[in-house]
Amino acid sequence: MEHNTLKETVRQLSLPESYNLVFYTSKRGTPMPHYGKMQEIVSLLREILFPGYFGDSRISPENMEYYIGVQVDKVNQLLTEQIVCGLCFNCHPENENDLCTHCNSEASGISMRFIESLPKVRAMLAEDIRATFNGDPASKSFGEIIYCYPGIRAITNYRIAHELYLLNVPLLPRIITEMAHMDTGIDIHPGASIGSNFAIDHGTGVVIGETSVIGNNVKIYQGVTLGAKSFPLDEKGNPIKGIPRHPVVEDNVVIYAEATILGRITIGANSVIGGNVWITHDVSANTKLSMTKEQTT
Amino acid sequence: MEHNTLKETVRQLSLPESYNLVFYTSKRGTPMPHYGKMQEIVSLLREILFPGYFGDSRISPENMEYYIGVQVDKVNQLLTEQIVCGLCFNCHPENENDLCTHCNSEASGISMRFIESLPKVRAMLAEDIRATFNGDPASKSFGEIIYCYPGIRAITNYRIAHELYLLNVPLLPRIITEMAHMDTGIDIHPGASIGSNFAIDHGTGVVIGETSVIGNNVKIYQGVTLGAKSFPLDEKGNPIKGIPRHPVVEDNVVIYAEATILGRITIGANSVIGGNVWITHDVSANTKLSMTKEQTT
Amino acid sequence: MEHNTLKETVRQLSLPESYNLVFYTSKRGTPMPHYGKMQEIVSLLREILFPGYFGDSRISPENMEYYIGVQVDKVNQLLTEQIVCGLCFNCHPENENDLCTHCNSEASGISMRFIESLPKVRAMLAEDIRATFNGDPASKSFGEIIYCYPGIRAITNYRIAHELYLLNVPLLPRIITEMAHMDTGIDIHPGASIGSNFAIDHGTGVVIGETSVIGNNVKIYQGVTLGAKSFPLDEKGNPIKGIPRHPVVEDNVVIYAEATILGRITIGANSVIGGNVWITHDVSANTKLSMTKEQTT
Amino acid sequence: MEHNTLKETVRQLSLPESYNLVFYTSKRGTPMPHYGKMQEIVSLLREILFPGYFGDSRISPENMEYYIGVQVDKVNQLLTEQIVCGLCFNCHPENENDLCTHCNSEASGISMRFIESLPKVRAMLAEDIRATFNGDPASKSFGEIIYCYPGIRAITNYRIAHELYLLNVPLLPRIITEMAHMDTGIDIHPGASIGSNFAIDHGTGVVIGETSVIGNNVKIYQGVTLGAKSFPLDEKGNPIKGIPRHPVVEDNVVIYAEATILGRITIGANSVIGGNVWITHDVSANTKLSMTKEQTT
Amino acid sequence: MEHNTLKETVRQLSLPESYNLVFYTSKRGTPMPHYGKMQEIVSLLREILFPGYFGDSRISPENMEYYIGVQVDKVNQLLTEQIVCGLCFNCHPENENDLCTHCNSEASGISMRFIESLPKVRAMLAEDIRATFNGDPASKSFGEIIYCYPGIRAITNYRIAHELYLLNVPLLPRIITEMAHMDTGIDIHPGASIGSNFAIDHGTGVVIGETSVIGNNVKIYQGVTLGAKSFPLDEKGNPIKGIPRHPVVEDNVVIYAEATILGRITIGANSVIGGNVWITHDVSANTKLSMTKEQTT
Amino acid sequence: MEHNTLKETVRQLSLPESYNLVFYTSKRGTPMPHYGKMQEIVSLLREILFPGYFGDSRISPENMEYYIGVQVDKVNQLLTEQIVCGLCFNCHPENENDLCTHCNSEASGISMRFIESLPKVRAMLAEDIRATFNGDPASKSFGEIIYCYPGIRAITNYRIAHELYLLNVPLLPRIITEMAHMDTGIDIHPGASIGSNFAIDHGTGVVIGETSVIGNNVKIYQGVTLGAKSFPLDEKGNPIKGIPRHPVVEDNVVIYAEATILGRITIGANSVIGGNVWITHDVSANTKLSMTKEQTT
Repeated sequence: MEHNTLKETVRQLSLPESYNLVFYTSKRGTPMPHYGKMQEIVSLLREILFPGYFGDSRISPENMEYYIGVQVDKVNQLLTEQIVCGLCFNCHPENENDLCTHCNSEASGISMRFIESLPKVRAMLAEDIRATFNGDPASKSFGEIIYCYPGIRAITNYRIAHELYLLNVPLLPRIITEMAHMDTGIDIHPGASIGSNFAIDHGTGVVIGETSVIGNNVKIYQGVTLGAKSFPLDEKGNPIKGIPRHPVVEDNVVIYAEATILGRITIGANSVIGGNVWITHDVSANTKLSMTKEQTT
Repeated sequence: MEHNTLKETVRQLSLPESYNLVFYTSKRGTPMPHYGKMQEIVSLLREILFPGYFGDSRISPENMEYYIGVQVDKVNQLLTEQIVCGLCFNCHPENENDLCTHCNSEASGISMRFIESLPKVRAMLAEDIRATFNGDPASKSFGEIIYCYPGIRAITNYRIAHELYLLNVPLLPRIITEMAHMDTGIDIHPGASIGSNFAIDHGTGVVIGETSVIGNNVKIYQGVTLGAKSFPLDEKGNPIKGIPRHPVVEDNVVIYAEATILGRITIGANSVIGGNVWITHDVSANTKLSMTKEQTT
Repeated sequence: MEHNTLKETVRQLSLPESYNLVFYTSKRGTPMPHYGKMQEIVSLLREILFPGYFGDSRISPENMEYYIGVQVDKVNQLLTEQIVCGLCFNCHPENENDLCTHCNSEASGISMRFIESLPKVRAMLAEDIRATFNGDPASKSFGEIIYCYPGIRAITNYRIAHELYLLNVPLLPRIITEMAHMDTGIDIHPGASIGSNFAIDHGTGVVIGETSVIGNNVKIYQGVTLGAKSFPLDEKGNPIKGIPRHPVVEDNVVIYAEATILGRITIGANSVIGGNVWITHDVSANTKLSMTKEQTT
Repeated sequence: MEHNTLKETVRQLSLPESYNLVFYTSKRGTPMPHYGKMQEIVSLLREILFPGYFGDSRISPENMEYYIGVQVDKVNQLLTEQIVCGLCFNCHPENENDLCTHCNSEASGISMRFIESLPKVRAMLAEDIRATFNGDPASKSFGEIIYCYPGIRAITNYRIAHELYLLNVPLLPRIITEMAHMDTGIDIHPGASIGSNFAIDHGTGVVIGETSVIGNNVKIYQGVTLGAKSFPLDEKGNPIKGIPRHPVVEDNVVIYAEATILGRITIGANSVIGGNVWITHDVSANTKLSMTKEQTT
Repeated sequence: MEHNTLKETVRQLSLPESYNLVFYTSKRGTPMPHYGKMQEIVSLLREILFPGYFGDSRISPENMEYYIGVQVDKVNQLLTEQIVCGLCFNCHPENENDLCTHCNSEASGISMRFIESLPKVRAMLAEDIRATFNGDPASKSFGEIIYCYPGIRAITNYRIAHELYLLNVPLLPRIITEMAHMDTGIDIHPGASIGSNFAIDHGTGVVIGETSVIGNNVKIYQGVTLGAKSFPLDEKGNPIKGIPRHPVVEDNVVIYAEATILGRITIGANSVIGGNVWITHDVSANTKLSMTKEQTT
Repeated sequence: MEHNTLKETVRQLSLPESYNLVFYTSKRGTPMPHYGKMQEIVSLLREILFPGYFGDSRISPENMEYYIGVQVDKVNQLLTEQIVCGLCFNCHPENENDLCTHCNSEASGISMRFIESLPKVRAMLAEDIRATFNGDPASKSFGEIIYCYPGIRAITNYRIAHELYLLNVPLLPRIITEMAHMDTGIDIHPGASIGSNFAIDHGTGVVIGETSVIGNNVKIYQGVTLGAKSFPLDEKGNPIKGIPRHPVVEDNVVIYAEATILGRITIGANSVIGGNVWITHDVSANTKLSMTKEQTT
């Protein structure tokens, strides 16, 4: 009887009407992007960007080029494969064979352009680290920030993912920022645009939406949301995708813990937004905004 | 001298008066539930529920039944073992031998009833995915939601854990929802009752307490708490366990980021609760509730 | 051409002007502390502190001393190595050889003193568990709290890290509390001072800053921040490190979800701080403080 | 100076004149066959051929088809990949692109034909096991032979490899028989032709050359060589490949330990060849051949 | 079409008539002994028997008892499980349930008696090591022999397996000696009886049959066979199992490389048997026996 | 009672009189050489020596120097550590501290000199491969020999080990050749001296003793022994270590399967030694030597 139950359940779960909404049909044998390999790619990138801090090797100026050379080569190889999976995830071939050849030939060039961006990515991260150090009395050294700080971990994943987003790679950028979300509780959409010298302290609960635009020298604390307030629906009642709907935060703004900023509004340059405040309209430059007063008994 | 220090510390840590509050005495050799095996079970269930999205295999309609068959068989075997551990965790045998035979014979039937629920669980999750897709302009496809969205990850673990909770399995449901809590920052107690078409966006910081009741078509955002306000104490000053103390959220409610809703109150159908609000009394149906006004300088 | 692009990128990434801010130069071949080994140390400590709950072994009173003996010996060996890495991370030798001999000889004594503290750490954790049990109607047993509760997980890492912090070990304490931050979303700086019977419920988003002082019998909920309000800058405009800048929370205080408490203020004994409140001034003893009123439509 | 030595050695090892004889140039990115994956394939085949003996699963008649189905599907997938690597190992494309498309399209059909042969391979192995059982007073059961006997291990690998050899797959058959050689000391070339009811006892040191032909019901002991005596050279003095040069052993022959049989000679049916003998000419049917006499002091 | 071929093959392989000779039906869910766990047991035993040589720990006289205590406890736990599998492998229950309860209750006592034999096993191995050292001019130290010599590796597995053989455990002893056979090419049946101060040099190809009896101070070289010459058949033509059919080798005998000694004959004390000789009759004590003369051109 | 048995056995095994002959006392915390790391070193060396054949990377002329650079750097790091362990294995410090500093400072220079020898080792192996190809009609390509042939595998380990032997590193050379012995059944002592163009076919059972001297262009088959006949004892009856006692085999000699050649004798150039022969006296150059005649019935 036990076997009958199992067999019957297996049969039900194998019916197309049961699985068709939740089943990934690979195209020409291309599977889903592979989470473990994506993790390997991001680990290799962390080793490349911050040599000596990550990875087991005792890298030195003398052998630097060998290590960077191998790590870049491996990233290129693994990433090209995963980009194929990402492109095929989205492709709807009329003639299946043609299009996936297309995905394969695209992937190699995309990977190459991504790799070319790494020196720039490293330079931006160095600025982010400096900004974090200057803004946190508890930090003892650049090294502690690189190795331990969740803010830098999340920003690193974001800056990597954003480059792939700009190259129109489907799915992979989101996987990379979700890895950081899992680790740090910081949820930055890879589509967001973020300037230089960006710092996040503590970070758990931060949400930065897809169409957010953040200037230079911005600092935010844990629990800050840059979200959408509402979004227009199309004639069928479904949300219209891709419309700017998240805040613009100009240069030199500081946003304290748990502040919620919603909609396509602008927080003007040099403003300071206090903790726990809730904002749905523009804030002009140089404003200091906080809870009107403390709650009392 | 160094050895003496180590030996003396070992001796102290091995004294019953040191360990007796924090030591798990296995009954008849049955150890604690095994975290790694619980992870394996949940991974297998994810592969069963969302074929092709998780696991390494290139599953297709032609070989679907083989793969589902093996995965279900493995879940049954592993879960039966872990249910024994879970039952023994709680059992207080007068005659130790008798009762644990009891745990062993119970476990197999419970596992079977759990497996029978899987087609229903998958159907509910398909609805949750659809609700998430319809509510998020940033989502590109069902597949992206299944693979990357922390909300669906947490709801999947909850729906699995809730079935085991209904079957009165101790500890395992909590382990399963805590796995999702660790990954996503979303903390849903397995005892909560949640209807269909449930969606959580971003999700970090969400807390849904043990006796919460959530209707159909409810959507919540990051940082939302459905918590207890206070709880009655028994004559010894200890909290009385098991009393309904969390909110009831009726159909079609939306609750925005960081809202805190406490106590056995009811949020009436079709209401919209704004971000950061704090509620400890009933809200009637069709209410739109938000912060009275924005804070100003 | 592809190879030229890769080679050119590798060359750029290997230039000192590209890597010098983000490169860890190991001293005398001592690498960074090793994350995997730090995880192994913390796992072993969890097995020592809570025998039978963690690890694969079927530990019993009869073989307890063998298991504790081996685990303590392994912690001592691994930790001594990692302390060397931690000390060297910070050392700036005039004569490199001399000072790192110094790091090596220091490490062994520090590890020993840390191990001597374990019986005390276990006793404090037993109290924390009891406090958690008494404060949560959903908890079924001490065992469930030890095994599943993120609050206890984070407090365990904190209490371990704090002992190393008191022994002036660089970096390792922070790595240990960040591990818990990643797992639980609870961010406790190892420098904070926390009394007995401490309980955190749910916990995601909790931040407890470096110079916080928490008394006995304090309970806090998810999203609570004990943070700095502002901090003095030195003549160069950099924050002055190490100044007390976080709250003092006296005995028997309860702080509900999402409350934000900033600056070197004192929350007097026996006070109750409501959810979502925002506090930047002292609160006298025995105060009940909450949102002035609920938001309405 | 140390760095100079390493760099100079690296430079020398990277010169084409140093590596050109010992370097594998992959064609169109197809690497060498992968040893670990070949091991996985052979492990899966052992699970398929001897269900319940190998692998971790508790296979039963009820779930047999699920398990066999998944294992066969995985073998097909892994083997197709490795056959591509094997074919490319040997291909010398004029136009590289065309030919490797050829390798890819070939591989799938070859894998399929190999899989079709599995029922026959299992049936032959069942006969080999029976022959081993009947010939060894120390064997307690079929199961012991399947699980522990090196002879059956080596014959299994040979029968698998021989099917791939007949399908003209390069390199993979040799890898598979060398795996058994490493484990058992039994070296059977995949090109050898071996009839039914074949048994090898103990087996260490057995060598069966490429063009050997072995009839039905043959039994051999450890250290037996079926080798080539000499081989003709071509006009350049190189050995001519592929000429029959190893013995023909007819039905029902027994060959005892350490016997050496060399050249394209025939050992007639029903003969018994004694231990340590050395034979380079035909032996007629029904002969008993042994050392003329024992050595004495 | 491809899918049809796979499905048809799967169907054939799942027919009882295909698998019934080569399928292991587990009894009451007890699977085959687990090869990986058997390896773990033997590794632990090697760590116990030769402390400091095997395993990663830095064992010292001060912590010796902790390490030995844990290792013995783990062996006991793992071995008890595997003995159950071994006993069930052989049991033919009338009433299945009764007998396997029997296997379970037997296993624990057997494991305990095995563990009691470990001090004796270690003492015998120490003598074997001394004998090896004294007999090999190439050996530099006891340590080199313990760590590197295949002879000691094989003898260790034999001495362990022989204790289990004496306790009538099915299958496991054979698995343990086959592990050594795989590693070293030395094939000692666990049923053989071997005295003290036994040494094997090089060892590849050595075969020592089930009913062999070897005295004290015996040394043998690579390729030596102590085998059966022929064996009586029962009325059905099957070999009669368990009859003494291998040589008796008395004290102080040396047997050089590749010698083959067959049948229940006795090699008298203090004899020296030369390389490559072939013996099927008794050799009286104090005999020096070698090839009559060298071969010439 | 069970616990008493275990405890008593643990106590006995922890007594110095039980373990003192079989216990490795590490010096200043330096443990035994680590088998797993030795395997890693040999794997890396195989990748360096035969690029593209071993390892997972898709190495090409363009990225060759990066890969070789990293592999050489890792070998240097790992090998230096293991050489320290090897040197300490043998050192008998009067003043323990001084001498082990000595071992540490020695190790780095030895590793460097070993690495300098790699181009020469690769060149010799290329010649050995060519000799194997020319001598085996079954071999299809150099690649097949590099990847699959046990003879080349064993010779590679020997040539690596021999370089370390010449640098007076204790124990490690033996570990390396025993790895090959385990895999291939070919036992070459690292102290043997072997010329260029050396080939071993099949190889199982080959033994080449410590003081053997082999010229150029020598080929040997499976089961060949180059051993010691007897060895002088010192006044205490122990064998005198290090005296030449194995054969000298001059250029261009072929030795067929299972031949046994014993003692410090010379096999003159261009000789051919037949299978199974047994030789203990010199053989002059250009001799063809085989079994006098075949055995007959």
